[in-house]
Amino acid sequence: MASSYGYPFEQQHCLSISQFSRPDIETLLTLGNHYLDLDVQKSKERSMLAGKTLVNLFFENSTRTEKSFEIAGRRLGADVINMSVVGSSVKKGETLLDTAATLNAMNPDILVVRHGASGAPALLAQKVSGSVINAGDGVHEHPTQALLDALTLRRHFGEDLGGLRIAICGDIKHSRVARSDIQLLNVLGCDIRLIGPPTLIPADADKWGVDVFHDMETGLEGCDVVMMLRLQMERMSGAFVPSKREYFHFYGLDRSKLGFAKQGAMVMHPGPMNRGVEISSDVADDPKVSLITSQVESGVAMRMGILHALSDARDGVA
Amino acid sequence: MASSYGYPFEQQHCLSISQFSRPDIETLLTLGNHYLDLDVQKSKERSMLAGKTLVNLFFENSTRTEKSFEIAGRRLGADVINMSVVGSSVKKGETLLDTAATLNAMNPDILVVRHGASGAPALLAQKVSGSVINAGDGVHEHPTQALLDALTLRRHFGEDLGGLRIAICGDIKHSRVARSDIQLLNVLGCDIRLIGPPTLIPADADKWGVDVFHDMETGLEGCDVVMMLRLQMERMSGAFVPSKREYFHFYGLDRSKLGFAKQGAMVMHPGPMNRGVEISSDVADDPKVSLITSQVESGVAMRMGILHALSDARDGVA
Amino acid sequence: MASSYGYPFEQQHCLSISQFSRPDIETLLTLGNHYLDLDVQKSKERSMLAGKTLVNLFFENSTRTEKSFEIAGRRLGADVINMSVVGSSVKKGETLLDTAATLNAMNPDILVVRHGASGAPALLAQKVSGSVINAGDGVHEHPTQALLDALTLRRHFGEDLGGLRIAICGDIKHSRVARSDIQLLNVLGCDIRLIGPPTLIPADADKWGVDVFHDMETGLEGCDVVMMLRLQMERMSGAFVPSKREYFHFYGLDRSKLGFAKQGAMVMHPGPMNRGVEISSDVADDPKVSLITSQVESGVAMRMGILHALSDARDGVA
Repeated sequence: MASSYGYPFEQQHCLSISQFSRPDIETLLTLGNHYLDLDVQKSKERSMLAGKTLVNLFFENSTRTEKSFEIAGRRLGADVINMSVVGSSVKKGETLLDTAATLNAMNPDILVVRHGASGAPALLAQKVSGSVINAGDGVHEHPTQALLDALTLRRHFGEDLGGLRIAICGDIKHSRVARSDIQLLNVLGCDIRLIGPPTLIPADADKWGVDVFHDMETGLEGCDVVMMLRLQMERMSGAFVPSKREYFHFYGLDRSKLGFAKQGAMVMHPGPMNRGVEISSDVADDPKVSLITSQVESGVAMRMGILHALSDARDGVA
Repeated sequence: MASSYGYPFEQQHCLSISQFSRPDIETLLTLGNHYLDLDVQKSKERSMLAGKTLVNLFFENSTRTEKSFEIAGRRLGADVINMSVVGSSVKKGETLLDTAATLNAMNPDILVVRHGASGAPALLAQKVSGSVINAGDGVHEHPTQALLDALTLRRHFGEDLGGLRIAICGDIKHSRVARSDIQLLNVLGCDIRLIGPPTLIPADADKWGVDVFHDMETGLEGCDVVMMLRLQMERMSGAFVPSKREYFHFYGLDRSKLGFAKQGAMVMHPGPMNRGVEISSDVADDPKVSLITSQVESGVAMRMGILHALSDARDGVA
Repeated sequence: MASSYGYPFEQQHCLSISQFSRPDIETLLTLGNHYLDLDVQKSKERSMLAGKTLVNLFFENSTRTEKSFEIAGRRLGADVINMSVVGSSVKKGETLLDTAATLNAMNPDILVVRHGASGAPALLAQKVSGSVINAGDGVHEHPTQALLDALTLRRHFGEDLGGLRIAICGDIKHSRVARSDIQLLNVLGCDIRLIGPPTLIPADADKWGVDVFHDMETGLEGCDVVMMLRLQMERMSGAFVPSKREYFHFYGLDRSKLGFAKQGAMVMHPGPMNRGVEISSDVADDPKVSLITSQVESGVAMRMGILHALSDARDGVA
């Protein structure tokens, strides 16, 4: 694949789905798809980021996302530096902006940031000279997860996702994944439903271009895709659910609730799963209905595509 | 050295010494020896694993073993990704099989696994598409340690280890190293003795092709090699030894107990040592009787040899 | 830049400023400056350390220094292995010399060591065959920080620092940075003053070739540079300062105290800063008076220069 791809992708950062136009998103998904094919064939491109430095700056633990970016960067030839600052000297002794100044002085070309505070990656993007990628910030956004979800959907349903009915279920309130997915799937013309208990659906959700439901039976009707969310117990400050057992009874996805959706509906989950809380193992592990493994497979490739696009934009190639 | 070496090594994984034939072991030791010579000469081969991804997946801390594999992989040109999942989000939020699925989706070519549960690497080997190397599982096996021990012995005693009398001493019960060493040294025709207190020798040890002794004086008679084991306090759930002081008195290796062995006998220890508990410093640090530094030197080279053989087997070269 | 640079740099290690002659220091600063220019131009040299292994062995946490060496090593093509042994199995199970033996057996070409005990890197240098770089040992030295400070000063004041009046202020007692800076700046002909409360200035400081002051107003008179030190609360075993608030009142650098120094005086701090304790944010963040960002920028380049010089000395090129 040539470095140019028709449309002039000119984004310097990847902070939020809301920053991207429809053609931007098409470019990113096309590149992700390119690398997914490459990956499967086990050939690996090495030169795109040769000599460039990618820093993984994680203020929250996430082995899965961090390693996905590390592998993506290395496969494109970058030097990858992991800075896990959970409980480190950086966290104790420095403000976020001191960390930014320190990092910037080291001249990283790409900075992948996960932070517990919404907006932290955007703040860093103003202070550093390289490209910043948001790998999850507070309850704000997780744009690369949304892009890999869309890539997964395209692999299964074909390039045009317009009109696909997608239910996003469970803990919407604490989910940055849901916020990014909703924006992205709206751009791609999907019909989006949110299903969850009133305590876990934000009051203004009806303004997000979605339909809100509080029971699975009604909400799942006619759905092509059932996207389950992790119950974010660690981000909950109050009593949002009576018990895990009761939560599973009403909102956990099992075979019988899946039967409310359209015949042939597919299941997704961003991981890591709370098995038996928001999803049952027999549904999660059944390759006939589950796209969960496919989502993880799309992760490295989609991130390679994002790195490719940002790098070209920096170099003025696109 | 060419990629082929006569005998068709066809193993996909390195899970247990018991999976290997005598010719398999000869192939591995020959390759280890090749890299040990290369190492000494400071030339480094870079192309064998170029573009391949090696993931170090450690569920237990082991700086020494992890770094040994990391250096071995890098010297062969691999991308090495360290996933230490001690206390991480992987450990908390995911089952071993979810971790396997996540990893497999990232397409690693080689997965090096250390886990507290016996059999975990073998379980992973069924679920991932790459080669799995057991870097220590519970009290089951630690095959790469046994291979580097045999490589060390060959460097000192010559290629034929047949008839060599080797005492393995101390905490046999909790030692995966002992289990792998016993199998491997049996294949190579050694005469193996176990020495330790009855509480630290498994009841069925007499069926392992060894002679069992409970005192050092009798056990060490005529031995060419005295292999001491780390007292695995952290894996003991009961009171196996009365005190460290008393343990050293009866089973700790010092000059006087070493005198019970054959003139010129050599001392080994897989490390890290509890000095003054199972071994005295004057014995451990005396280059005239100790092969301990040579064991560590063999570590990186032996692991390069194992990576070489597995890679060739995958590619169908051997 | 050619690998040779006139003067025969023959140092095998970088343990202490006191080991270097004036021409040694000139060589190092010239190389640091070379890489600082290269960095800015974003071209990156890759071959100097290709095939060599750099091990970062950190017994104390320091994300900033560790990552600076990691980036420096990678940009020169080295394989970089991070061994953080804070609370790891190495720390628990092994003595420093066992760790040295283990490491040496892995044949690292360069060993970067940070340790809480003064002299630990020098001890390791006697036991390993590669080059050892002291990345901070106890309250002894931090030579690479002093070199990057000098490089920063040269970028601002020009090549000849002779006669420059420099005040080093605050917690001299617990500062290895101060000890290295004093030696290096003395060699370069600077006029050095120490300012701090009597409890934080060692009794023998008057023998270090410096003038000692206990109040900022007198001490800062005529100074070209005000170098603030981090108040090392974590290394203090007694009550050295009455309170942070009172400390700032007497010794914290703010606009009004900076007014005591020469017109146009510049401010430095090795980081990480305790804002509001030893320095106020408006001074630290003002690019017209602060060289703090420039210090960090010099860090990676200066370390590349040190690696370059040590590598050449090993290879007998210089």
